[in-house]
Amino acid sequence: MKSVYLDNSATTQIDEEVLQVYIDCQRNNYANPASVHSLGSKSEKLIKEAKKKLLHSLDIENQYDVLSSSGGTESNNLAILGTVGFYNKRGKKVVTTPIEHASVSEVFDCLVQQGYIVEFADVDKDGFVDVNDLKEKMDSDTVLTSIMAVNNEIGTIQPLEEIGQIVKSKNPQCIFHVDGVQGYGKIDISLERFNIDLLSISSHKFHGPKGVGALFIKEKVGLKPLIFGGGQQRGLRPGTENVPGCYAMSIAAEKMMKSRVQNNKQIAHLKEKLRDGILKKVKNSRVISPENSAPHILNIAFKNFKGEVLVRAFEEVGIYVSTGSACSSRVSDSHVLKAINLPKEFNEGAIRFSLSNYTNEQEIDYTIEKTADIIEELQLFM
Amino acid sequence: MKSVYLDNSATTQIDEEVLQVYIDCQRNNYANPASVHSLGSKSEKLIKEAKKKLLHSLDIENQYDVLSSSGGTESNNLAILGTVGFYNKRGKKVVTTPIEHASVSEVFDCLVQQGYIVEFADVDKDGFVDVNDLKEKMDSDTVLTSIMAVNNEIGTIQPLEEIGQIVKSKNPQCIFHVDGVQGYGKIDISLERFNIDLLSISSHKFHGPKGVGALFIKEKVGLKPLIFGGGQQRGLRPGTENVPGCYAMSIAAEKMMKSRVQNNKQIAHLKEKLRDGILKKVKNSRVISPENSAPHILNIAFKNFKGEVLVRAFEEVGIYVSTGSACSSRVSDSHVLKAINLPKEFNEGAIRFSLSNYTNEQEIDYTIEKTADIIEELQLFM
Repeated sequence: MKSVYLDNSATTQIDEEVLQVYIDCQRNNYANPASVHSLGSKSEKLIKEAKKKLLHSLDIENQYDVLSSSGGTESNNLAILGTVGFYNKRGKKVVTTPIEHASVSEVFDCLVQQGYIVEFADVDKDGFVDVNDLKEKMDSDTVLTSIMAVNNEIGTIQPLEEIGQIVKSKNPQCIFHVDGVQGYGKIDISLERFNIDLLSISSHKFHGPKGVGALFIKEKVGLKPLIFGGGQQRGLRPGTENVPGCYAMSIAAEKMMKSRVQNNKQIAHLKEKLRDGILKKVKNSRVISPENSAPHILNIAFKNFKGEVLVRAFEEVGIYVSTGSACSSRVSDSHVLKAINLPKEFNEGAIRFSLSNYTNEQEIDYTIEKTADIIEELQLFM
Repeated sequence: MKSVYLDNSATTQIDEEVLQVYIDCQRNNYANPASVHSLGSKSEKLIKEAKKKLLHSLDIENQYDVLSSSGGTESNNLAILGTVGFYNKRGKKVVTTPIEHASVSEVFDCLVQQGYIVEFADVDKDGFVDVNDLKEKMDSDTVLTSIMAVNNEIGTIQPLEEIGQIVKSKNPQCIFHVDGVQGYGKIDISLERFNIDLLSISSHKFHGPKGVGALFIKEKVGLKPLIFGGGQQRGLRPGTENVPGCYAMSIAAEKMMKSRVQNNKQIAHLKEKLRDGILKKVKNSRVISPENSAPHILNIAFKNFKGEVLVRAFEEVGIYVSTGSACSSRVSDSHVLKAINLPKEFNEGAIRFSLSNYTNEQEIDYTIEKTADIIEELQLFM
């Protein structure tokens, strides 16, 4: 049976070249970068090189640094808890949206318990932040604004440049954090032009190794660390640095950025083909992802179906998709679909197809065909 | 030139078989364990299997769980901050020793700033905890006692069984955390018999991959998470699980435990040989590691020398050693050597030789010979 992996927003397969870099590094550069001997210095150099590559991946020349972490969740947590912890005298208000990933929204839940006021800027039916509402919700007490670049369930690309301008014009001291986990490499992100102070990324979302991530941080932005000891990474994120993981991530980033335009064009083409094919063949299907959403995410809802049932049916023909966020897969209701007011008859039957560079035309043709078969067959039981 | 790596307490080279497991997992089990489809379940199964192997490595049948983390530093932080955060109503007192690793001691520095009272149980000239002093320092307000299994600089093995008994007899509610980063696989650790509630380990210290660690946790022990979002690992340590890292770590653990007795006997034999050889050939050398210390750590001080100078001299003949903890390598004074009151003329010239399964007889012979040469040569310049 064919195997078609369309769950790339949950995680991607590692790039073989990146894996080779990882292997080489584990074998030949195993010393602790904190060791003072030359083997340690060699490892330290790799870490520096990795960070340079990561900065370079976003065309950053100066004014920013990058910290390595264990992944997107830690990066988001460090950005948010680190900011409010460091600037706790500035205010007790934070602004976000109702459609953030759990690794952002649950941190805010935790801040509410600590007495913070969390304001949610409205989103429209396509998941776009209502910039006027954002303007109103922000004030001089707002310590942090955290908004994702690309929504992980439906692919909406937020107008980060406009948002950044609003954030800084309403309160120049407010720290602007962007969860870039789904957006990095998929859309244009200019930290400087968008006024971004902190950007989180996750290596395994772009064909890098698992268990590694990064947090871009603007110079002079303060963070209270989440963990302590050893002083690595200016004490902001200590612990023996994962040299092979971090270096391999930087190679994955470099490689992705090199062929980004071309690859995203191809992915977007396949996504359109998938969308049009399903719309044409399956009545009562509705595209949730807005026009001009991220090239790799296509969310389509099938009226009166249950997402879990569809995932199983797709799996039986070798197609791997998901109902929404993998990280919230155990939760039945999607907070994103709720926030964009999707009618109930569609709400439960939403499927996220997420593509990557590795997705090809044949796989898309196969998926269109099988989607039609599955829906037709399942309808017999309704 | 020969290359002799004797900095295994800083980090070890990955085991080739473990690396193959990692590679295979990155290639073939790349799905997100939180995805509901069967590829996700396959990954989830590997995580479960890994945790089973880790529990099995300490002969644990039940009553304990294990969380994966990004390494020893995170595990120690989660254990300490997680415990005081969860049990913050029980009291504001914690007990530890003055010779803990930075990833423990700096967390306590942080707790002091939050109003906690940190009591340090005395250690003797060999680094052993003074159990009578420990008894006195503990009381009904003590929320947590954190004591390392094996000191990372000099190899002292703490009497964990006795300490555990004291902790629980003085205050049955007190959580007993053990930093097992240097002790795991090197000495006997029985979580149940030693009354240990939390044990931290780090994969790269036992020939596993970098960037992974674990925290063993007794059932019913509560922890306040350090990071939030996604609900993985019962919400105690969320974030997409590092399947290849965690699984490869468990294979490294399994492999280590299988030949532990035999390997440690051999390492201890080599360590004795190194110790006796240096003592015999180099006058004014003094063994800092106590008798019956951990098999892999030998700390020897050379009178009136500077450790950094020695590390460089060793490096020039291809021998890689360190002055103390790699994680504190940028700090000139060792808090451990200070705590055990080593005379000043020895304090600065302490060298840690740390061995592994990969160390062989020839390397030890070479190191003895070169140590004598180095000291003789450097003495000409004194």
